[in-house]
Order: sequence, then structure tokens, then C-alpha cells
Amino acid sequence: MRILGIDPGSRITGYGVIATNGHEIGFIACGTIRTGDETDFSRRLLTIFRDLNEVIRIHQPTVAAVEDIFIDRNPRSALKLGHARGAAVVAALHNNLEVHDYPARQVKQTVAGYGQAEKIQVQHMVRTLLQLSSTPSRDAADALAVAICHAHQHAYGRWGRSA
Amino acid sequence: MRILGIDPGSRITGYGVIATNGHEIGFIACGTIRTGDETDFSRRLLTIFRDLNEVIRIHQPTVAAVEDIFIDRNPRSALKLGHARGAAVVAALHNNLEVHDYPARQVKQTVAGYGQAEKIQVQHMVRTLLQLSSTPSRDAADALAVAICHAHQHAYGRWGRSA
Repeated sequence: MRILGIDPGSRITGYGVIATNGHEIGFIACGTIRTGDETDFSRRLLTIFRDLNEVIRIHQPTVAAVEDIFIDRNPRSALKLGHARGAAVVAALHNNLEVHDYPARQVKQTVAGYGQAEKIQVQHMVRTLLQLSSTPSRDAADALAVAICHAHQHAYGRWGRSA
Repeated sequence: MRILGIDPGSRITGYGVIATNGHEIGFIACGTIRTGDETDFSRRLLTIFRDLNEVIRIHQPTVAAVEDIFIDRNPRSALKLGHARGAAVVAALHNNLEVHDYPARQVKQTVAGYGQAEKIQVQHMVRTLLQLSSTPSRDAADALAVAICHAHQHAYGRWGRSA
């Protein structure tokens, strides 16, 4: 099973693809889609949609895991994030991928053993779990972490007693 | 020019297509995309995206006008609406349509002459302006109203002194 993890954002969307056989996980790819320079907000959504389509075409994941958005107190930011997340989810579904949502807390708990883990801890643990030679950027690491979280949910036991 | 008006919502998305030569407007089609029965929220987004793709394929609009979302005080509703609107905007852009945003107040001002007009007034005026034999549903009327608002913005004068 190949899992596409997505960490959507209106300025930077992280993505990460991992493979799992239910016992082990392996790194396939990761990266970021940067849209912050695009002044037309709608164009950012198209870039997220198109670039994720391309990632899916190249790496052929079978399922997507998307980080659930933290509900900001500010409705305007929630609205923007909603747009970006909607574009990302549509890209996955349009390519016939199942989409699963995971709250940030659960993602952090899975990869770092602590729901309030800092971004840098997540980056470190993602690097360790996937045996990467360098540390991925924050957004790419978050996306890989969501993918790992999904793999963990569907593991056969190796991943610990809570699975 | 054929204009696709969209009034996005997470349960009901209205759409309407009109034609204009810069002087007159004519009705082409309108309808609603109902997603409220779908319990999986992500699936709603896919339905919005796919159904709008179909509307665009059939009616061949060249530009899209989308109602700007009222920023609710509740970030959770703003987030949901953002998802729906993101899916709609991506559908339009993916089909190479330009996307223009219009605040609800401007739409109401254009079709009903009053920025705080009630939905029923908008329905009535849309019916009158497009010479329809029956009154469109609220969501379809709102979508047609956004399309009319865009036509008005790009009119050559017939639409009144403010254009």
C-alpha cells in the first residue's frame, strides 16, 4: 500500500508518500507545494490541485491521509485553510484515492509519542522512522507524519499495542 | 460570453449559466447540487467538483463568478464553507475558466438595487431580469444573481449609470 500524506495550507502544502506492507514502512517521496507568492488566491488552489495530481500520477498512492485542520479562533483563517484543504481533498478523490482524516494530535502521538510534540520533534522522528539521510522540511515532515499515522492505523501489530 | 454563477455551500451548491453580449442577458440553465445526504464530508466536495465539471462540459461557460462567503462568526462553519468553495473554484479553474469573486452585498445591490435585499427579492428579480416562466430555487437564483452581477460589471452601458 502506498500512502499519500498531505498537510494542506494556503501558502505551503506539504506532501509525502510512503509504502507499507502492514509491518514496515518505507520512504518514497516528499516535498512542498509553495503558493504564497501567488497573489490571486484562487490560483493558489489550482496550483495545489494540479501539483497534487502530478504527485499522484508519478508516485501512484492508493490512499490519502490528510491532517485535520486546527480550528483557528479566526474565521477568516479557517475559511482560507478550508479552501486549501478542499482543493487537496478534491485532488485525491478525483484520482480515486480514499481519503482519511487524522487530527494533528493523533499524528503527533503516533510519530512522537506525545500529542503536543513540537514540529522539530516530528521532523526528527519522521527522519528516524523512515531512515532518511536528511531532515525533511517542516511541512513535508508533517505530511509524512500523517501518512505514517495512517500506516499505523492499518498495521498488523509491529507498530505497538495501541494499533 | 457565457457566465457560470456559483453559490457554494457544503449542503447545497447553486449554479446558473447566462449568456450576455454586453447589452442583454439571456438564461441558459440553472440548478442545485445537493450534497447534504452524503455523510462523508470529503465525498460532498467530490460531488461539487464533479457536478460542476459536468455543468461546464454541457453549457461551455467562458468565465465563472462565485459569491464571496460571508465570514461567519463560527470558525467551524467558515472552515466547512471554505472546503466547498475551494472545490467549486478548483472545478472552474481546472476547466480554464477565469474566476471572479463578488461579495453578496454587491450581488444583491446589482440585481435588487439594495445590498441587504432578502432572498425572495433576489429570486423575484432574477426571474424578472431573465424573463423566466417560473421562480428558480433560492440557491439557483443566488447563483444566477452572481452571474448577472458579473455581466453587469462587464456591460457596455445598458445596465445603468453605475456600470
